[in-house]
Amino acid sequence: MFNKISIIGCGLIGSSILRAINKKKISKLVYVYDKSKDVVSFLKEKQLSQNVTSDISLAVKDTDLIIISAPLNSYKEILLLMKDHINKETIITDTGSVKKEVNKIVEGFNFKNVSWIASHPIAGTEESGPQSGFAGLFENRWCIISPGENAKKDDIEKVKKFWELVGSKTKIMSFNEHDHILSLTSHLPHAIAYNIVRSAVKNGDKNKDEVIKYSAGGLRDFTRIASSSPTMWRDIFIDNSENILKVLDSFTDNLDEMKKAIREKNSNKLIEIFSSTKDIRKDIIKAGQDTEKPDFGRKKN
Amino acid sequence: MFNKISIIGCGLIGSSILRAINKKKISKLVYVYDKSKDVVSFLKEKQLSQNVTSDISLAVKDTDLIIISAPLNSYKEILLLMKDHINKETIITDTGSVKKEVNKIVEGFNFKNVSWIASHPIAGTEESGPQSGFAGLFENRWCIISPGENAKKDDIEKVKKFWELVGSKTKIMSFNEHDHILSLTSHLPHAIAYNIVRSAVKNGDKNKDEVIKYSAGGLRDFTRIASSSPTMWRDIFIDNSENILKVLDSFTDNLDEMKKAIREKNSNKLIEIFSSTKDIRKDIIKAGQDTEKPDFGRKKN
Repeated sequence: MFNKISIIGCGLIGSSILRAINKKKISKLVYVYDKSKDVVSFLKEKQLSQNVTSDISLAVKDTDLIIISAPLNSYKEILLLMKDHINKETIITDTGSVKKEVNKIVEGFNFKNVSWIASHPIAGTEESGPQSGFAGLFENRWCIISPGENAKKDDIEKVKKFWELVGSKTKIMSFNEHDHILSLTSHLPHAIAYNIVRSAVKNGDKNKDEVIKYSAGGLRDFTRIASSSPTMWRDIFIDNSENILKVLDSFTDNLDEMKKAIREKNSNKLIEIFSSTKDIRKDIIKAGQDTEKPDFGRKKN
Repeated sequence: MFNKISIIGCGLIGSSILRAINKKKISKLVYVYDKSKDVVSFLKEKQLSQNVTSDISLAVKDTDLIIISAPLNSYKEILLLMKDHINKETIITDTGSVKKEVNKIVEGFNFKNVSWIASHPIAGTEESGPQSGFAGLFENRWCIISPGENAKKDDIEKVKKFWELVGSKTKIMSFNEHDHILSLTSHLPHAIAYNIVRSAVKNGDKNKDEVIKYSAGGLRDFTRIASSSPTMWRDIFIDNSENILKVLDSFTDNLDEMKKAIREKNSNKLIEIFSSTKDIRKDIIKAGQDTEKPDFGRKKN
């Protein structure tokens, strides 16, 4: 389907895409650009691609599909670097976690002959860097696709097909809808996880070792969520600040209601709060987004 | 070491203890009491014990160790039911998640010939009921032991030994210290998880299906934590309200600080917040409380 794909930025996500393209033979050529020398030498050493370059013009020349999998705050720089080297009709997509702001940046370039079609594969681990990538990262995961104003219909189909080939289910969403839904499903939980971990350890300074020792009671799982890349999350929180602040305010209202129930030892209210969330869990299991017994690799019989 | 052990209440925890005692042959006799007819018939049907009874006097007669693994708010009733049937020197322990309040209840009974030594095995799953138990639940988990004022030294050693035999590591802590540490490592994360799930879905009512569909981005893991037994958590929040309210207030302060940083798009402050929690994760992994790649049973290569 593709003669040449260009991966711009090759960390956890970019290198997983690269591995998946190699494994599924999705393109004749794959060029990989990364500005980090360490990344370039890692990819060469592991022979993950014949065409690893720190020259972006080489990477995007004659290409059918450009995938930006770099930090959100580097998009402008990347687009400036590549804009004069796009020499044929092509598609630009990305893998960023927020859409509205980067869409403004891309549309601002007024590219000719480019279909801008954003992607957000909802997949990742707490790790980063090309050494952490793996071909199966996108399998059975959702990828949300948000086409720019002037994206060609055929090209949208191509991007859909691309994600399906690497194993994902796809869903088309507007930029605004994407940022709203993700503020609920991903940005809220991450914001909160950071604060839980800070609260538990700040409060427990003299008991820090004890807190860590007994963290299996719940805290442990939050520390995983709260240890993803700081710069990535900074970019997300700044780009999607409006949606995130709105949901955090609603969270504070809910928390205040719970605090009141605890203070008043209001048994019925507490049961009501705790019961309401059980059903949501059931819906998530029904929707195939988790198994009934994920067990977190820790259950032993 | 024991001639007879009595398990009072046989849900997830009680039945896991029963299975572990059977597997490791820790006692000649095991008597199981549960007031639920369904539980009794399940245990008989599965032949998990020869001695399943709904007569508590039978269960505690001539026993060496009584393990209360029943809801916190049922302790008083259970102790009233059994108090006249304890006919020899024995140990009473439990498996409850909060200690200070139940300690008051037990000490109020002024038992003669009883060593009261509370236990809290930090182990569990999101499920409940005897069908969910398994012998390995306590393996490599911590069990916190809090001896009552008049507990005999020898009996404390016996309780320690018991938990070691079912596979746990043990740690002695005062009732107050236990409730403080657990408010940080377990009660805080649970309180917050309930509010995250409520906030995500309340906010997203018209997008409920979408929120559930894309919950892999973080929300999913919280729904698991937020779907444990509502009555158990009500009891914990009421019994440990003082510690929990204190840590929730500190959480609110941290959240307000983060909101301010988002509102002001304060990049440095956000990086500072997000970086501080990464180190704690490292400490948890170092302490053997999680693996570097827990992967949650979802990673595929």
